[in-house]
Amino acid sequence: MSSKKFLLEALKHATDALTRDEVPVGAIIVKDGIVIAYGSNTREEMQDPTGHAEMTAIREAAKALSSWRLINCELYVTLEPCPMCLSACQQARLKRVVYGAKDEKGGAICLGYHVHQDVKLNHQFEAIYEPETDCSQILKDFFSKQRNLKKTEKSAK
Amino acid sequence: MSSKKFLLEALKHATDALTRDEVPVGAIIVKDGIVIAYGSNTREEMQDPTGHAEMTAIREAAKALSSWRLINCELYVTLEPCPMCLSACQQARLKRVVYGAKDEKGGAICLGYHVHQDVKLNHQFEAIYEPETDCSQILKDFFSKQRNLKKTEKSAK
Repeated sequence: MSSKKFLLEALKHATDALTRDEVPVGAIIVKDGIVIAYGSNTREEMQDPTGHAEMTAIREAAKALSSWRLINCELYVTLEPCPMCLSACQQARLKRVVYGAKDEKGGAICLGYHVHQDVKLNHQFEAIYEPETDCSQILKDFFSKQRNLKKTEKSAK
Repeated sequence: MSSKKFLLEALKHATDALTRDEVPVGAIIVKDGIVIAYGSNTREEMQDPTGHAEMTAIREAAKALSSWRLINCELYVTLEPCPMCLSACQQARLKRVVYGAKDEKGGAICLGYHVHQDVKLNHQFEAIYEPETDCSQILKDFFSKQRNLKKTEKSAK
C-alpha cells in the first residue's frame, strides 16, 4: 500500500471520531505493510487529555506486539502530531511518521519541536508531510460547523 | 503540605516502581492541597511506551475529576519530565509542575523543549526544579545496580 492509501485508512478513524463529535483525527500503525493498530481522538468521550489518536494507536500497537519498542513500525496520522504525540513516537522508537495535514497552531514540527531529529535523544526517525486534501478538509468542515453552532447559540440568546 | 512533602509523596510511588524493576519514577497530582491521583513508571511491566509516571497520574486525575482539563492542578514528579510528559501537562492545562531531580539526557527542559512557556500554545504553566536528594539518589542507585548486573553477566560469559 502507498502512503496515500494508509492515510486514507487513517482517515476512516478520523471519520469515526467525527461521529462522536470529537475533533476528527485518526491514526494507524503499520508494520511490514500490515495495519497492526489504530486510534482516533477520544479526548471528549473519555475526558482524557492524552486521548489523541496517535497515543491510542501507539499503545494498541505495543499491546499487539507485546513490546514497548515499536521497531520498524510507521505511524500514519491525518493531522500533524502535537509535541506530546511526536515525543511519544520517539519514546516508542517508531521508524517513520507520515501526516496528511499540517497543524500550524499545535503541530510539533510547525511549532519548531523537532524531537524526531534530536541527536541528543536516543532515537531519531522521519516525520513526513504528505498533503492529503481529505485529511485537512474533514477538519475544516468540523471547525466551520463548530463556529456556525456558536454563532447560532449567540444569536439565540 | 510543602513542595518537599509532595515530592516525598511522589517518591513513594518511585519506590513502588523500583519493586517492579522499573526505572524508579513516581508522580502525584495535587488539587487544593489534596492528592487526587498518582502514577509510577510501568513501561516494562505493561510494555507501554507511554507508561511514564506522569502520564498515568494525569490520566487518573482526569478520571477523578471527570474532566480532561486539570484546572488548578499541580504535578509533583521525582524526575524532570521528558518532552512527551511535559507536553501532556500542557495538554491537560496543569497549573504547575514541580520535579525533584534533573534529567540531563532526557528531560524536556534540559533538552530545551520549553513547551510550558510557549506563547504560541494555548496554555502556559510553571515548571519548577526543587532539588530533592532522595529523588535523584533512588535513580543513581538503580542505574548503578543495573551496570553492576551487566558487568557480572559479561564476566560470567
